[in-house]
Amino acid sequence: MTPLEKKYSRYKQLIDGQLALLIRKKDPASLYEPAQYVLDAGGKRIRPLLVMLSCEAVGGTAKQALNAAIAIEVLHNFTLVHDDIMDNAAARRGRATVHTKWDSNVAILTGDALVAVAYQVLLKTKTPAIAHVADLFTDGVIEVCEGQAYDKIFESRRDVTLDEYMLMIAKKTGKLVSVSSEIGAVIGNGSPQNVRTLRTYGELIGRAFQIQDDLLDVVADEKTFGKTIGGDIVEGKKTFLLLKALECARGGDRKMLQSVIDKSGTALANVGRVREIYERTGALAVAKTAIDRDIARATSLLKKLPETPARAMLYWLSDMLLNRHF
Amino acid sequence: MTPLEKKYSRYKQLIDGQLALLIRKKDPASLYEPAQYVLDAGGKRIRPLLVMLSCEAVGGTAKQALNAAIAIEVLHNFTLVHDDIMDNAAARRGRATVHTKWDSNVAILTGDALVAVAYQVLLKTKTPAIAHVADLFTDGVIEVCEGQAYDKIFESRRDVTLDEYMLMIAKKTGKLVSVSSEIGAVIGNGSPQNVRTLRTYGELIGRAFQIQDDLLDVVADEKTFGKTIGGDIVEGKKTFLLLKALECARGGDRKMLQSVIDKSGTALANVGRVREIYERTGALAVAKTAIDRDIARATSLLKKLPETPARAMLYWLSDMLLNRHF
Repeated sequence: MTPLEKKYSRYKQLIDGQLALLIRKKDPASLYEPAQYVLDAGGKRIRPLLVMLSCEAVGGTAKQALNAAIAIEVLHNFTLVHDDIMDNAAARRGRATVHTKWDSNVAILTGDALVAVAYQVLLKTKTPAIAHVADLFTDGVIEVCEGQAYDKIFESRRDVTLDEYMLMIAKKTGKLVSVSSEIGAVIGNGSPQNVRTLRTYGELIGRAFQIQDDLLDVVADEKTFGKTIGGDIVEGKKTFLLLKALECARGGDRKMLQSVIDKSGTALANVGRVREIYERTGALAVAKTAIDRDIARATSLLKKLPETPARAMLYWLSDMLLNRHF
Repeated sequence: MTPLEKKYSRYKQLIDGQLALLIRKKDPASLYEPAQYVLDAGGKRIRPLLVMLSCEAVGGTAKQALNAAIAIEVLHNFTLVHDDIMDNAAARRGRATVHTKWDSNVAILTGDALVAVAYQVLLKTKTPAIAHVADLFTDGVIEVCEGQAYDKIFESRRDVTLDEYMLMIAKKTGKLVSVSSEIGAVIGNGSPQNVRTLRTYGELIGRAFQIQDDLLDVVADEKTFGKTIGGDIVEGKKTFLLLKALECARGGDRKMLQSVIDKSGTALANVGRVREIYERTGALAVAKTAIDRDIARATSLLKKLPETPARAMLYWLSDMLLNRHF
């Protein structure tokens, strides 16, 4: 492990440790057992890391932002629990989802309680700007709900455009990442310019991350990715690649892509052909360029911040996300 | 209408007006249409009224507490939307529930968005104690979730005790009422003693209200009550009356009550017999006494507050709740 990887691992341990101890209550077990189960599931903990690093990058300490960091991660987990019900997802991170292991009612309530737990820990943050921090956090909750609503609507629409898709992922995925960096910077008492810089940094890496997720579905190594390659195609999911390719494809290619949208052509056997269309139409190249451009812009923004160990870590973070195979 | 009834009607209009204008966004329609539908459904608006009156009763103004009042009502409506999914309830206040008019996914997301909207409006409150207010509000969300979790668990348990039931309703119903009066008093900058007085007042009327709900199910006039008499019995619901009667009933009476719990004896034809058992075992009398005692204690607590028009209105409120037939 490089020194920065070691540092990441230390932050992650701190976050995991806090999450493991967060829920002190035992009763009712039907509420707190699934809540703890969710928080114990692991994950990359990118959002809380970003809260702490952003706080440090403007002159604060990681500790000052720890409660807010945990709050963001708990909030993120709430969205996963409710999304999994809506998406009928049976597994996440290799384990049964809450509504599968328990039932839908338990999952609805667990999600609700996690929102409240998130606010509870957020409000422990000692800062004169607590009302502003809570406001930013709340905007995050609202936009995540809007993003999920669009996502569900888009599932049954045939004519979703790439622009609409970009708006949806900005809300569903990007917003909570940019709220993470913004809240961290506010808690660290950053200047308005530094707060803006870090918010935009979050927006950019959040978007790049999501497009890369779509890309990895067709180009990743199956073993390191941990998911079946072409899973999005088999599900008929409207991804960056599918919508971009649809903008350019004609004739038989177009018919093939339409059949993925209609879910009539979503057989695993079609994955290879669809991937070829993604290549031929240039959709793959456009996605790669979009990711590179976002990460380059995010990285260049960091130059505006003072040179600190936290900034070095933020450089490492965007680089890691760009090169991830997971 | 008496002058106090007129005053209540003015407060209610103010609250309804604010709720009608609360949601400015239109898109995504699948989120904001059902959210507005819920807020337009009406209701007695007791909780927001209590927030404003409590603020006034300690020397603040109703306007100071208006945002918090709206927040509490929005939060209350969130709980109704999610509870209705869990309870498979088709109608509420004479209209289709959100998950019936739309679907479960829409109802889950609408509820989630309402929580965020509630925090958004709460955080507009101008008070140096905003962090404390948000904390109290969040405790309310958590306890309401706990109460609902117990309620769901109790549905499938045969051995629920009256004490457990009292704990459940304290969390599911009572807490949000006491949070209403407490938050109002804190926003009005009330003394710690007055804040405590108003919190306890809220706890007591919240509990009395719930027990009376159970009582009205068997003694109310069907036309003014607006629900079928004996509905709780037909549903096999574990109410104050059923659990109290079970503590005392023997022989055939006990068997009859057990059959209501097992849902083998929940035919409409049994309602009369069960009501007789409630009478014979003294459960009806105990419920009435419990309500009277709580309201008397609540009313007597109000004497500790300065004599103001708001206090007169709080006297009227507990009296109205005691004598309601709806």
